[in-house]
Amino acid sequence: MSEEKENIQFELTDELVDQVAQLIEVNDDKELNKLLNEFHYADIAEILDELNLEEAVYVIKLLDSDTTSDILTELDEDNREKVLKNLSAKEIAEEVEELDTDDAADIIAELSEERQEAVISQIEDEEHKSEIQELLAYDEDTAGGLMAKELVKVYETWTVAGCMRRIRGQAKEVTRVHSIYVVNKEEKLIGRLSLKDLIVAKSEQKIADLVKVNVDYVNVHDDVEDVAKVMAKYDLEAIPVVDDSQTLLGRITIDDIVDVLKEEAEKDYQLAAGITGDVDSDDSILELTRARLPWLFLGLVGGIGAFLIMEGFESLFTGKAVILFFFTPLIAAMAGNVGVQSSAIIVQGLANDEVRGSVNSRLIKEMLLAALNGIILALFLFLFVWAIKGELNTAFAISVSLVAVIIVAGLIGTFVPLFLNKRGIDPAIATGPFITTSNDILGILLYFWIARMILGI
Amino acid sequence: MSEEKENIQFELTDELVDQVAQLIEVNDDKELNKLLNEFHYADIAEILDELNLEEAVYVIKLLDSDTTSDILTELDEDNREKVLKNLSAKEIAEEVEELDTDDAADIIAELSEERQEAVISQIEDEEHKSEIQELLAYDEDTAGGLMAKELVKVYETWTVAGCMRRIRGQAKEVTRVHSIYVVNKEEKLIGRLSLKDLIVAKSEQKIADLVKVNVDYVNVHDDVEDVAKVMAKYDLEAIPVVDDSQTLLGRITIDDIVDVLKEEAEKDYQLAAGITGDVDSDDSILELTRARLPWLFLGLVGGIGAFLIMEGFESLFTGKAVILFFFTPLIAAMAGNVGVQSSAIIVQGLANDEVRGSVNSRLIKEMLLAALNGIILALFLFLFVWAIKGELNTAFAISVSLVAVIIVAGLIGTFVPLFLNKRGIDPAIATGPFITTSNDILGILLYFWIARMILGI
Repeated sequence: MSEEKENIQFELTDELVDQVAQLIEVNDDKELNKLLNEFHYADIAEILDELNLEEAVYVIKLLDSDTTSDILTELDEDNREKVLKNLSAKEIAEEVEELDTDDAADIIAELSEERQEAVISQIEDEEHKSEIQELLAYDEDTAGGLMAKELVKVYETWTVAGCMRRIRGQAKEVTRVHSIYVVNKEEKLIGRLSLKDLIVAKSEQKIADLVKVNVDYVNVHDDVEDVAKVMAKYDLEAIPVVDDSQTLLGRITIDDIVDVLKEEAEKDYQLAAGITGDVDSDDSILELTRARLPWLFLGLVGGIGAFLIMEGFESLFTGKAVILFFFTPLIAAMAGNVGVQSSAIIVQGLANDEVRGSVNSRLIKEMLLAALNGIILALFLFLFVWAIKGELNTAFAISVSLVAVIIVAGLIGTFVPLFLNKRGIDPAIATGPFITTSNDILGILLYFWIARMILGI
Repeated sequence: MSEEKENIQFELTDELVDQVAQLIEVNDDKELNKLLNEFHYADIAEILDELNLEEAVYVIKLLDSDTTSDILTELDEDNREKVLKNLSAKEIAEEVEELDTDDAADIIAELSEERQEAVISQIEDEEHKSEIQELLAYDEDTAGGLMAKELVKVYETWTVAGCMRRIRGQAKEVTRVHSIYVVNKEEKLIGRLSLKDLIVAKSEQKIADLVKVNVDYVNVHDDVEDVAKVMAKYDLEAIPVVDDSQTLLGRITIDDIVDVLKEEAEKDYQLAAGITGDVDSDDSILELTRARLPWLFLGLVGGIGAFLIMEGFESLFTGKAVILFFFTPLIAAMAGNVGVQSSAIIVQGLANDEVRGSVNSRLIKEMLLAALNGIILALFLFLFVWAIKGELNTAFAISVSLVAVIIVAGLIGTFVPLFLNKRGIDPAIATGPFITTSNDILGILLYFWIARMILGI
């Protein structure tokens, strides 16, 4: 009766992958079934991700559809797409029948519109079919796109005993029962009950007397990131989803939120590193180029900007002032680093709803912070230049410029994400090459201006 | 009977904070109680985070300890520390009595050793006290440091009916019942049951017939990041924790894992941006300086390295070759960007256990990728330099150097995190200023070498 296998020690080894590949090659279905059935579907998905397409499809066609449907949900997205291309609409429909509505809709949503229709028409269970169709209509970034139709629902007029009897039936359809949602006769959500409450209650009690009426819920059109914030903040494991007139439509469980949080974190991290789109290290060189080249191009344009600025100051490139040019990489690096530091901390604060108070007070704080850091660093640089060049003036000019550059970079790094956020643009794009590049250019310009002024050349 | 309030629309406004502050000022306890009791404890914690210390302590002393204990767990860490300093050991002990063992141990762990003992000695419930002491002994980064002692446990020899009776008692102590853990008479974990299984089963059935024996579990000394990976991968909502001889010690729930994942993501993001330690935008300027200055200093040292390299080539470049100096910020920026892109994707792959296969094949792939990107970018730069300077040689020298610099930067960005990971060091540190700085210097050195060679000067 065990659905889940003990897998904590599962390790994907080359030997295991080879063993599976060999069994496929000699068509030893019996041995293959025996071997793979020892593993959790998430582990089998990992094995399949290492096999070639033909082998993966072989395994999918071999195993039971209650296992393979789960495996499909866990496969790497690119591999899933390829595997699905090798299955007929009928075969996909059979897989989808085994899945909860949310997972089923996610898989179907990845198909072409034409195939979507073909698959849906092959789903035999009419209720499952219409629920999947309902879910497909929602935007994938909304609560509707994340919710499942499977839930346990009782009416406020029922008794505990009646309720237990009825939910026995419903619960069989639902993988995990977190909460029991209580609705009135118009199907509007009025509260919730936990299974624990029900077990602890006396059997003649009325649901209306047990129900917790102040239930958290989200609207079907709420953004998934907001849903994630609410569930994380209130430590919820499931949340009901309602429409504008409070009708109970579905529920979202915490495991989906864990995935949303991971994806968000990866997206932000990649943006900070100058990578767009959802790529991973196993993607093709072309896909990776598409994700990386635009940001590099931005860097190139920034570098050309720096070149033009320096060329504009070329006349200074004589005698002792030549040293100024040798510090431009330092100035650009410091401007870039400070900018990214400042914006990263604002972006993170915005994501956690921690950034409150006026923009001005943020900017003043960052200015003081940047000034403090800048002065410490400039002092060090001053001593270095003075020691090796023996020129007080030059050392002074370079150091003062550095402080100014750091302050301006800090202010830009603080202001840009706040500004983007206010305009409804994801502030995370501000932490990447965008900030670095603009700070590079501006920093170098400022540096030459100030240094020239101080040196009087 | 409602523990949780409807809060999805909660918004922390200045008006609300002012209102609470005013009620505190006039000591209107009745109105304050009425107002705050409308909110979820997580929301009250947000309000308290905006008040000054005196006001926050006032509220904590005013409200019931079953609410305030939860509020304490949700307060910002710095604020909690200050509030706890203003409570007596007796008062803290009362708060801690209301909490689950894991939250209780977390709060006590933040106190000085002296105060820890004082608080523990004041805890009246002997079982709670000894459980908290047990948890305090575990490292906070291990499963033991995250687990709670509260769980529902049944013996394999019981029947469903007996089980239901017994767990009614246990379940009252446990906020949420995810799974029922089945042990043998030596208290060793042998499997699990869901509440759903129990409800659906017939009352005369034996637990031994229902138990799912292949239960996932973690060892008490396992790293929390590994626990998070396992729970996310297998979509678990709770996982039992055992010692080396399989004795059931506690359980970890998914809400704690959500916090671990968020903290990990924030840490990696901050490392990538050159910020160490757990700081947020509301921390003091000194704390922020401590988190940021070391990385800026690294950048400064890198910049000085670049200066020394350029100075070393000073004599070579006169007349038309001076232009080479004007492209150093571009070269440094491209080397830095490519390096961060490559390492970010490896760091992420390592975090997701996706990086398989030999280091060599990774390096070859990155080399091809970098070469492709480099050639496209270099072509553009070549045309630019040629167009505005009309010098084919210089344009060629700069472009070829750029390709070489990008390839080397990509290889370093790929190799360093793989190397750090192999040595057991968090590879995430490789995505920040560390990679940028070393690539800056190396890039500039390489650039001048190659350019000089091509130009024959």
